[in-house]
Amino acid sequence: MTVKEIVEQKARAAKAASRQLATVPVGVKNAALYAMAEQMENTDAAQILAANEADVASARAKNVKASYIDRLTLTKERLHGIAKGLRQTAALPDPLSESDFSVVRPNGLSIRRVRVPLGVIGIIYEARPNVTADAAALCLKAGNACLLRGGSEALKSNAAIVEALTKAAASAGLPAGAIGFIDVTDREAVGVMGNLRGIVDVIIPRGGAGLIKYCAENCRVPVIETGTGVCHTFVDETADLTMAVNIAVNAKTSRPSVCNAMETLLVHERIAPAFLPLVTYAMKAKQVELRGCEKCLALDGVNFVPATEEDWATEYGDLILAVKIVPDVTAAIEHINRYNTGHSETIVTDSVQNAEKFRREVDAAAVYVNASTRFTDGFEFGFGAEIGISTQKLHARGPMGLRELTSVKYLIDGQGQCRQ
Amino acid sequence: MTVKEIVEQKARAAKAASRQLATVPVGVKNAALYAMAEQMENTDAAQILAANEADVASARAKNVKASYIDRLTLTKERLHGIAKGLRQTAALPDPLSESDFSVVRPNGLSIRRVRVPLGVIGIIYEARPNVTADAAALCLKAGNACLLRGGSEALKSNAAIVEALTKAAASAGLPAGAIGFIDVTDREAVGVMGNLRGIVDVIIPRGGAGLIKYCAENCRVPVIETGTGVCHTFVDETADLTMAVNIAVNAKTSRPSVCNAMETLLVHERIAPAFLPLVTYAMKAKQVELRGCEKCLALDGVNFVPATEEDWATEYGDLILAVKIVPDVTAAIEHINRYNTGHSETIVTDSVQNAEKFRREVDAAAVYVNASTRFTDGFEFGFGAEIGISTQKLHARGPMGLRELTSVKYLIDGQGQCRQ
Repeated sequence: MTVKEIVEQKARAAKAASRQLATVPVGVKNAALYAMAEQMENTDAAQILAANEADVASARAKNVKASYIDRLTLTKERLHGIAKGLRQTAALPDPLSESDFSVVRPNGLSIRRVRVPLGVIGIIYEARPNVTADAAALCLKAGNACLLRGGSEALKSNAAIVEALTKAAASAGLPAGAIGFIDVTDREAVGVMGNLRGIVDVIIPRGGAGLIKYCAENCRVPVIETGTGVCHTFVDETADLTMAVNIAVNAKTSRPSVCNAMETLLVHERIAPAFLPLVTYAMKAKQVELRGCEKCLALDGVNFVPATEEDWATEYGDLILAVKIVPDVTAAIEHINRYNTGHSETIVTDSVQNAEKFRREVDAAAVYVNASTRFTDGFEFGFGAEIGISTQKLHARGPMGLRELTSVKYLIDGQGQCRQ
Repeated sequence: MTVKEIVEQKARAAKAASRQLATVPVGVKNAALYAMAEQMENTDAAQILAANEADVASARAKNVKASYIDRLTLTKERLHGIAKGLRQTAALPDPLSESDFSVVRPNGLSIRRVRVPLGVIGIIYEARPNVTADAAALCLKAGNACLLRGGSEALKSNAAIVEALTKAAASAGLPAGAIGFIDVTDREAVGVMGNLRGIVDVIIPRGGAGLIKYCAENCRVPVIETGTGVCHTFVDETADLTMAVNIAVNAKTSRPSVCNAMETLLVHERIAPAFLPLVTYAMKAKQVELRGCEKCLALDGVNFVPATEEDWATEYGDLILAVKIVPDVTAAIEHINRYNTGHSETIVTDSVQNAEKFRREVDAAAVYVNASTRFTDGFEFGFGAEIGISTQKLHARGPMGLRELTSVKYLIDGQGQCRQ
């Protein structure tokens, strides 16, 4: 079979399963999630770890970065973590049980809007094999079939995980095909998945900016763009300096590789002479490389190297920070709306007016006042789960929980009504 | 300038306007809508009607269908109707004032989800010039700029309407560029609009299946598919026969050209011998052409011509009806899920079980029990306005009102919180 035929076959199986899944009671889905946890953590743990060891060995042979190996590696402890996540998903409220609109019209028609699954969700991701279980669990809980396409380096691990999940799901009575897995590593597979309109309902890429751009430009199936974050912290004239240093250091260094980490620090020019030495000292203590605008360099030619135009648009994902001194909050907002990716932005200020202006005018999924951008996350927001953070405006924006994996349907009950 | 340059220039102007519009108070937007109504109905009525006469004369010279001329034609009365619609839009609640989620987290972070405009909405439509005013009004009310691209036959009418709307909007203080109008008739313009990712936020095509398919396949900007309807009525074994005839006749004949009209009638085989003569008589009295499955032809070889496979998938938009006799509700649901376009489906039944099965298993935006599919409409649902009926699952499904022209934004207020 060609790559196209393989992908289409799996997608059609997922579509058929999705029709059945849409009517499976939540109790059955929860039982499947508990069974999946047990299978991953105990019954099939040895097979999964063995498959993962083979993947890790191949990756090591290619001399990849240590951080990459770390993301790829599974341990007994990490399997426990994954299993715990599956059980937490089972314990979440059923997103299909909500109805937020119901009306009886003057003609007697009763109209309800209920939540329904999206159908088949294609997830395209990179090295982390835990995404396989997390994403499958969230899709299933919301009544969706999934079609998983992980990174080629994790192929054996992912295959072993999917096998375990599928066995457990079947034992609980879920339809075969509910967890579709694309086991061809050819990049062509992504293109095929992304163009199965009418079979795959949405594509969610989880990975670097390159993957997301590729999907957005090459998929005819709707794509939800997630997780690219050129996030900013703006330190206003009236900021509490200690708070500003703490927030900036937390936003940059607590986990530099994630999408809600800060990439650019904007500083009000009136506070810059006082603030810059403090934040420079704190950042240097955390081994952060500093790239500054001309005004920064004028204030401190020792700790800063010059930032280029490219720096303002770069998601470093690393211990590098671009710093720009701006004349006021208006200039800060302009800079942000020009260079940001619509993820998370924060202002540190004591001015109610500037806080409100920043909230209103900054165009991003999450806009903070006096807090670190690192909180943009489904768990921190209290959603209990997260499939990704949408940086687009259509369908979902910000952390996507179970509700964002559903659509709606209008149910209308009449007694013979006809329209005039 | 090339088509590409013209479209890009207008789109960039709309984008700039959208940033300003996002913060314009609702009172100013409403004042603009009232001024637009006045301008269309009185101040500029003569110019608009003169421009429309020229369009109608050109269309007549091309010998197009009478129904087409009717859609294209504006009269003083129709301008009053459009103005009334603009005032109704002004009177609707502000969709940006709602917040449906607000929480204070254990760490003291206060999180609110508020509604924000989508940004720039591209509307691509066909002959009816009234869409120009209706669509612009709904986009503006929700805080969006629009980029309008109407049919070439209505170019002069649309240009005159946009000129009137723009003058009125400017007099009320709205930013220039808020109502973008693509005055090039080249089809290339659609392709350019649909690929301005990062400038145009969403494309909503309003028109025939051909236009919608073209947009879905050729736009990189997200598209909301609207208004194709292969809608079904299923008459179950236990249906009240009089109710079933009334619903079927209403769904087929009250306005055959619209998307919520019935195209295929499914009949339970046990009730077919009693029901078919009744519905045949009623449909024939309304000049409906009947195309039946083999079983229909066996029961009535006089009034039916044979239906082909193609008929089951066709949106006639005309006084033609496909009829199929099915063994039970399961077969009816299977047929619907295979051939429908996800718009509106109805069952006529006295069985609670079958009604519930139909509601649960039919995959469509609106699923009816004992009522005509003709009610799928923003006004009939009580939304007060409608930009179209979405037949897709992402972002919006079913009638789209003002709320569906918005996105969300999370506002997070802290007191210096940093993430562990």
